[in-house]
Amino acid sequence: MDSLENSAGLAVQFADVEAAAKRIAGKAVKTPLLHYPQLDDALGFRLLVKAETLQRTGSFKFRGACNKLMIVKEQNPGARAVVAFSSGNHAQGVAAAAAMLGFKATIVMPDDAPRIKIENTKALGAEVVLYKRHTESREQISSDIAAKTGAVMVPPYDDPAIMAGQGTSGLELCAQAEALGMKADVVIAPASGGGLVAGVAAAVKHLWPAAQVYAAEPATCNDLQRSLMEGKRVGNAPGSVSICDALMSPIPGELTFPVHKALLSGGLAASDADILKAMKFALTRLKLVMEPGGASSLACALLNRDKFRGKTVAVVASGGNADPEMLKRALDGEDFAIP
Amino acid sequence: MDSLENSAGLAVQFADVEAAAKRIAGKAVKTPLLHYPQLDDALGFRLLVKAETLQRTGSFKFRGACNKLMIVKEQNPGARAVVAFSSGNHAQGVAAAAAMLGFKATIVMPDDAPRIKIENTKALGAEVVLYKRHTESREQISSDIAAKTGAVMVPPYDDPAIMAGQGTSGLELCAQAEALGMKADVVIAPASGGGLVAGVAAAVKHLWPAAQVYAAEPATCNDLQRSLMEGKRVGNAPGSVSICDALMSPIPGELTFPVHKALLSGGLAASDADILKAMKFALTRLKLVMEPGGASSLACALLNRDKFRGKTVAVVASGGNADPEMLKRALDGEDFAIP
Repeated sequence: MDSLENSAGLAVQFADVEAAAKRIAGKAVKTPLLHYPQLDDALGFRLLVKAETLQRTGSFKFRGACNKLMIVKEQNPGARAVVAFSSGNHAQGVAAAAAMLGFKATIVMPDDAPRIKIENTKALGAEVVLYKRHTESREQISSDIAAKTGAVMVPPYDDPAIMAGQGTSGLELCAQAEALGMKADVVIAPASGGGLVAGVAAAVKHLWPAAQVYAAEPATCNDLQRSLMEGKRVGNAPGSVSICDALMSPIPGELTFPVHKALLSGGLAASDADILKAMKFALTRLKLVMEPGGASSLACALLNRDKFRGKTVAVVASGGNADPEMLKRALDGEDFAIP
Repeated sequence: MDSLENSAGLAVQFADVEAAAKRIAGKAVKTPLLHYPQLDDALGFRLLVKAETLQRTGSFKFRGACNKLMIVKEQNPGARAVVAFSSGNHAQGVAAAAAMLGFKATIVMPDDAPRIKIENTKALGAEVVLYKRHTESREQISSDIAAKTGAVMVPPYDDPAIMAGQGTSGLELCAQAEALGMKADVVIAPASGGGLVAGVAAAVKHLWPAAQVYAAEPATCNDLQRSLMEGKRVGNAPGSVSICDALMSPIPGELTFPVHKALLSGGLAASDADILKAMKFALTRLKLVMEPGGASSLACALLNRDKFRGKTVAVVASGGNADPEMLKRALDGEDFAIP
């Protein structure tokens, strides 16, 4: 089911993405769409990389946060504070957008989040409240803060303004590919709660109805892949883990999943071992730093070379906030076997 | 001496760079000019990065090689073969341009060159002739091959077509900065033989006469910095070494140095230790892989933060062909102390 006829009534529409792009212009970085022509023959497909690693705060998350806070400012001029929960990239995106737009930000983060993400969030001026991932509820802590302080909640994905903001990455991708004289046959974006791939699909399927949009997930947390196969939201087994700290949402969102169901061609998944190989491929062949979650789309492209043979495949590299230890782990590991 | 009045008679002119850009359009990658707005306040200057790391073969060298071979094709339609000597980036640039334009390429490389660089050069279709660095002359071997086979020599820097090709990076830099509504006050490009910084200066000083263009070198191989101070070509002490394997030419070029003398504001230098810190800064803050030589311009910008306070500083990140061990060495090392 990837027809546009199904898009009416979805929580994110093409017009919302266009409006978001106008709203965040000059605030978000217009990240480059990269082509490595020397790799095309060896890969058997034409690879394009939308480098959200180069976005403010090192991931696409600033786009949605900025769009959301701009709308809050328009609709609720008295709002002064925001609160969000996140293991890292949404935290930094919200903190940066809040600082830029004059909000006080409080971010609820697990105490085992990558150090680089906690430190960066603090450096962006946010107050960080740490919680224990396995014994405390981040939702409860966040809503307590919202109730006590009047802060506006900024959800990580299940929000139309967030989805539309993330979709601006897809809108740019289409324009940038066309400026290179190309169109993508396939677009792959990582999915956790699924806000990015929903927004990207809303943009791409409107502009290129024939393109196939896929979600990429770690094989151990492939809730969206299985949900798409079953036609309904199913969750990951409790305790499912992956090196993709950014892609560990337990189940697709209530608002995002109908978008996925209507617009995606399916879900793809990669093992942690293959994601580490993709990170090494990015470092040594693409000269880009990707965090594990950010490399999942690249891993899925490289794993499906037969399926994508001869096509133009655009992957959204959604984030680059990897600790040095994780980069070293990738560099010490195996290479993807490319001819 | 950085006045355009001195540019007449130099081996590379703005018009040559413009012509090169037309010649290599669609063959070389138009590499992005990256801005990281979140870093500007901490750095005290606005940093722009011209990411030649993302060029075909991972360095700017493809630009000059492609321009040179296109001119050979125009002027000498019977030419079928080219020869070059290089242990690294020029080898790959020439091999890639030769393969694209239908020349047989022979590259003379030292037998102790990094295996990956030899393999990459072969993978690009070139014949690699190995020589013993300490007992054989690469110039002699190359000219023997040229004499025997009629192959055209492709020099690494002391050639007007090579300089003009490398200068296309500077031409793009100016246009891309202006598209962002910016102009650089300072442009820094790495220098070995000095072809890149000569070509970049020819472009930048024509378009932005008030901009200051600097060469970046490793402190142990700062022949251009010292030559500019003395007003004549002086060499490095024999046996001078640096981790910047791409920046170890013994003395500025005969054709490049007059360009440097006329157009550059001076030379900057960074220690190997500071270059490693800049590589780590690139990996963790810019999300880019730079090889040591490619990070020298960034290192010089970071080292001169007081000098550049409040300015817009564009650095050319000239290459990204670092092996995993060198990246791990940077990741294990210290951070640049940025507030």
